[in-house]
Amino acid sequence: MSRFWSTTASSTDPYVPGEQPQKQNIIKLNTNENPYPPSPKVLTAIREGVNESLRLYPSPTADDLRRTAGEFFGLSPNQVFVGNGSDEVLAFAFQAFFEPGETILFPDITYSFYPVYAKLYDLNYETVPLNEDFSVPVEKFLNAPGGVIFPNPNAPTGLGLSLAQVEYIVNHNRDRVVIVDEAYVDFGGQSAVPLIQKYQNLLVIQTLSKSRSLAGLRVGFALGQEHLIEGLNRIKNSFNSYTLDRLALIGAKAAIEDVEYFQSTTEKIITTRKRITSELRNLGFYVIESQANFIFINHHQLPAKKLYEDLKEQGIYVRYFNQSRVEDFVRVTIGTDEEMDVFLKAVREFLRT
Amino acid sequence: MSRFWSTTASSTDPYVPGEQPQKQNIIKLNTNENPYPPSPKVLTAIREGVNESLRLYPSPTADDLRRTAGEFFGLSPNQVFVGNGSDEVLAFAFQAFFEPGETILFPDITYSFYPVYAKLYDLNYETVPLNEDFSVPVEKFLNAPGGVIFPNPNAPTGLGLSLAQVEYIVNHNRDRVVIVDEAYVDFGGQSAVPLIQKYQNLLVIQTLSKSRSLAGLRVGFALGQEHLIEGLNRIKNSFNSYTLDRLALIGAKAAIEDVEYFQSTTEKIITTRKRITSELRNLGFYVIESQANFIFINHHQLPAKKLYEDLKEQGIYVRYFNQSRVEDFVRVTIGTDEEMDVFLKAVREFLRT
Repeated sequence: MSRFWSTTASSTDPYVPGEQPQKQNIIKLNTNENPYPPSPKVLTAIREGVNESLRLYPSPTADDLRRTAGEFFGLSPNQVFVGNGSDEVLAFAFQAFFEPGETILFPDITYSFYPVYAKLYDLNYETVPLNEDFSVPVEKFLNAPGGVIFPNPNAPTGLGLSLAQVEYIVNHNRDRVVIVDEAYVDFGGQSAVPLIQKYQNLLVIQTLSKSRSLAGLRVGFALGQEHLIEGLNRIKNSFNSYTLDRLALIGAKAAIEDVEYFQSTTEKIITTRKRITSELRNLGFYVIESQANFIFINHHQLPAKKLYEDLKEQGIYVRYFNQSRVEDFVRVTIGTDEEMDVFLKAVREFLRT
Repeated sequence: MSRFWSTTASSTDPYVPGEQPQKQNIIKLNTNENPYPPSPKVLTAIREGVNESLRLYPSPTADDLRRTAGEFFGLSPNQVFVGNGSDEVLAFAFQAFFEPGETILFPDITYSFYPVYAKLYDLNYETVPLNEDFSVPVEKFLNAPGGVIFPNPNAPTGLGLSLAQVEYIVNHNRDRVVIVDEAYVDFGGQSAVPLIQKYQNLLVIQTLSKSRSLAGLRVGFALGQEHLIEGLNRIKNSFNSYTLDRLALIGAKAAIEDVEYFQSTTEKIITTRKRITSELRNLGFYVIESQANFIFINHHQLPAKKLYEDLKEQGIYVRYFNQSRVEDFVRVTIGTDEEMDVFLKAVREFLRT
């Protein structure tokens, strides 16, 4: 605490990201990174961009990247906003569309950055309890006084809503913005992008960190009707004219263009997830049916925290949330088949002790 | 205007950056970029970083870069904050240290992003009129109710304050944060960094965009006592855990380490600035004595706006501010000697017509 801090700085409750150990030779299954490298075309494109043009500012409007993203999603460039990771895009969206004094809704078990944004922008929020099985009680998200945000699929559960369920929520909040955070949608979820032309109040947020293996490049998107994108631009252009550097712009464009690589790595992860889900169930684990690149698992005989700590000692990092309702679970990112076999072996040994 | 925008999104008044024409073969003297490429060591380091590690998140705390910057500035790593360009760092600082309802002070002629930040965070501000000769009336910045921010050297004038003048302002605002924005300090200004250990309330902001030729990489710094850096981290970690991508972290570190290259390119620019200042004065221009990598010039016979437009038609971009008190000036970034000779030739021809 310092007497020089503003009320905002004093009262906010910063987010704590998963550990980013700098050690080599660990198996990192704790922050939902993609186990496969970025597309070779991305690396080539970035390498070509490492030249003297770095002395010049990047494009403040990122036209080229927005055009490419628009083509991929079937939208116009003016329906696309790009930012420094979906975290930055989410922050801008909270500030652009949610009003202090009006209560926004999100699930009680969800991405733990949402309440942090709410504090930063002095927003009221209510958390809606998920059902016993962690499914989303859709009817409780209707007519939200200040707006709605939820991930689809949800994190850390991995459970997804159908397009019809998402539309139901969007359609019953016509006067408020509904933000669908699709960070993990490419691993088996149903995207709400096809609803954008129909609903003025729908904002979809995606990222290249997961399905394009580019967590280290920091590129996220918002997709929605032009008036929403303009709202985001008003905030962004009051904050930082150039949020994406030249290399991020180049790499992001190449990543979106390489559809084939994206599809093949995504499918590999889905295949591995299915295999691991089934093997863990055979070992007596309760594994929530995931549509994401992670699984959320629980074993009635095993203390989750102990499993997390035991794995960490062996250099296998998974994520444990010390939070009511999920303290018996660990979240495990889907790695390569080889990594998951090491993980499974360690779990089997843990079960024996 | 959209009914979905928050009060903040509706009422903010976004910054408009200088033009970033995508054309080739122009002479770009409008956004204070460095005419020399980044250090070859920077390009090599970044190229080596373009590999599969991009699938992993960057370090959220940027320890390695903060250590390097700390060594360069003679500070501890905990007295260094890094962000996505000094614009982002400034935004965080406005939110962390200035309180809505308390009036902050900055010059009437200065970096035009300051009032934009103030609007974004709902801050009251008063602009202090510069003296007739654009020098800063130091005594008017004492005992500011909500804090102070000014660039040193100032933009777009290029005029600098001495270290004693800066200290006088800092010392007479002991209960409020004084932010010294040193984006251009390496081109002849006096940095306030040596005052940091002495003053709890001093925050110095710098950037790699100008003196390290890295506008395209987006890296800025804040330097100050640990409690101020912690305040910035509280805001940043409530906004985006990873504001600098892996390549920016690598490139920034290499740029700070290559002191020799930095000094030689900076000296070249200072030498060119002196020559051009003197040549323009011989042509009858009023040229403010600049300590930055740009000059602010006026000619009693020439309409500045017409000069700006005429130069632009010839592919020479300079900056014109349509703002009271400076509407008879253009701001010209110092380019290479060759670029400045083309500029001078065009100006001479313009004078003849």
